[in-house]
Amino acid sequence: MKNEIKVFCPATIANISCGFDVLGVALDNVGDEMVVKKTSKKGITITKIEGQNLPLQTHKNVAGVAGLALLSASDYEGGFEIEIYKKIKAGSGIGSSAASSTGAVCAMNKLLGEPFSNLELVQFAMKGEELASGVQHADNVAPAIYGGFTLVRSYSPLDIIKINTPKKLYATVIHPQIEIKTSDSRKILKTTISLADGIKQWGNVGGLIAGLYTEDYDLISRSLEDHIIEPIRSILIPAFDNVKSASLNAGALGCGISGSGPSIYALSKGKETAEKVAQAMQNIYNKVGIPYDIHVSTVNTEGIKTIS
Amino acid sequence: MKNEIKVFCPATIANISCGFDVLGVALDNVGDEMVVKKTSKKGITITKIEGQNLPLQTHKNVAGVAGLALLSASDYEGGFEIEIYKKIKAGSGIGSSAASSTGAVCAMNKLLGEPFSNLELVQFAMKGEELASGVQHADNVAPAIYGGFTLVRSYSPLDIIKINTPKKLYATVIHPQIEIKTSDSRKILKTTISLADGIKQWGNVGGLIAGLYTEDYDLISRSLEDHIIEPIRSILIPAFDNVKSASLNAGALGCGISGSGPSIYALSKGKETAEKVAQAMQNIYNKVGIPYDIHVSTVNTEGIKTIS
Repeated sequence: MKNEIKVFCPATIANISCGFDVLGVALDNVGDEMVVKKTSKKGITITKIEGQNLPLQTHKNVAGVAGLALLSASDYEGGFEIEIYKKIKAGSGIGSSAASSTGAVCAMNKLLGEPFSNLELVQFAMKGEELASGVQHADNVAPAIYGGFTLVRSYSPLDIIKINTPKKLYATVIHPQIEIKTSDSRKILKTTISLADGIKQWGNVGGLIAGLYTEDYDLISRSLEDHIIEPIRSILIPAFDNVKSASLNAGALGCGISGSGPSIYALSKGKETAEKVAQAMQNIYNKVGIPYDIHVSTVNTEGIKTIS
Repeated sequence: MKNEIKVFCPATIANISCGFDVLGVALDNVGDEMVVKKTSKKGITITKIEGQNLPLQTHKNVAGVAGLALLSASDYEGGFEIEIYKKIKAGSGIGSSAASSTGAVCAMNKLLGEPFSNLELVQFAMKGEELASGVQHADNVAPAIYGGFTLVRSYSPLDIIKINTPKKLYATVIHPQIEIKTSDSRKILKTTISLADGIKQWGNVGGLIAGLYTEDYDLISRSLEDHIIEPIRSILIPAFDNVKSASLNAGALGCGISGSGPSIYALSKGKETAEKVAQAMQNIYNKVGIPYDIHVSTVNTEGIKTIS
């Protein structure tokens, strides 16, 4: 068995418009890398973080906390050293904390001979999410671990379903360089919704899942609506309405807030359209004068990948 | 082209626990029959209703109202005579009004050479539903017309998706002989719900749709939960909790209120289990002393069927 492993930890888009707190999808071309080593020393030691200023202390780092959750459920008596090469910016809304939490637990699981199921790995990684946002949400960690589109059918008991990924689906993500904390963007949400909006939302979730299985891009497009969260959260994101309408005009199937923002995602059929959408998004932020990162990616159907 | 047609008009289960106002399924072994004839006389004439005491006046009968909606959208200059042989009891919660509305418009459409799409037929039939309940709901008329499981993804614009039906799925329906008006059972619902319950509901809708496509009976079972409507409406149905727990103990995948009640439905894998569930349901109402009708049925994947 290997003593050291290097993994790719994908960025993820949570919510996907209609699926607040339940849907997510993993990306191929955006993500961190981590190197995890087995050591005789007990516990988790984070030896290096490159690319971002994040705490090295195990209890303050999401990878450390998620790793400790795995360790405490394991009969392994040694420990792990972790190096983190961050490329996903914290607070970007594309699962930066989830990438680190899931990368840590998946790498450790592989080094231990895979004693834990994907569902258990999600539960460990959710401890990292709790540290990052105050809430044990699973909509980023589930797609990072399972790959593709995932549905968190239920949180109690935790029940995660991997959904089919249509072949031609591409994601475009633009990250305007402003920070919104997940905890802040949760606070502005209302705790009640109208039954009428709820009906629209579960109609769209049903439509999106049906569209993903039948690879019906028109149905996917019609289902990418959010009547509940987007109207509230989008006010925190500069020029959201312009970016969205420019994306749809450029041919995107749908466009909305990635996770709790500020990143905005769009799904498109085919790479060419996804790139046109990227150009349309950039044009808006160039005009407004807000710096951004932009990504075009296929869907990562595999989840955390072993690099070496 | 035929001048007369006899059709089978299936009973339907709306909501299917998690899918309030959006999901429905058509049945094979429970339904009305209608005979519809082309006449040179304009308008709709209901010449006969057997099996139930319902108004013959066109404007007061759901089949009449739905038929008039079709007629007014058509360039056909004659009319139709309708005979209705009711077997589904009004107010039973298994789509009695929908069976009559959809039977009328589907039969007329066939006699006219099918000028209208299924979606248009649903819109005509919804006028009948409005007469019956005050609301143009589509969750019974959609499965009666499309067959199988249907999702009303959106009401505005109307968007209906036919969902895959797993081969071994059976429905059991028990109708306790008490009347609940659809309009009354709507009144007791709250107009707001908690966001937390909404998340559970759209997680379950997503899970149910995924389970129907992948024919994953366990997932279907886990998804047949209703955290929003059932806790409120079930108080109108005598011994609901006992019937539900007896059904689940007998092996049902799930059990809930059919439409707005008072009928209770269960889904099972295989006929044998569906019949055990029927026996378990009957035992409860036999003990309580409430008369009932009981049905065990395969899913009708065809919708309205031409008998002759």
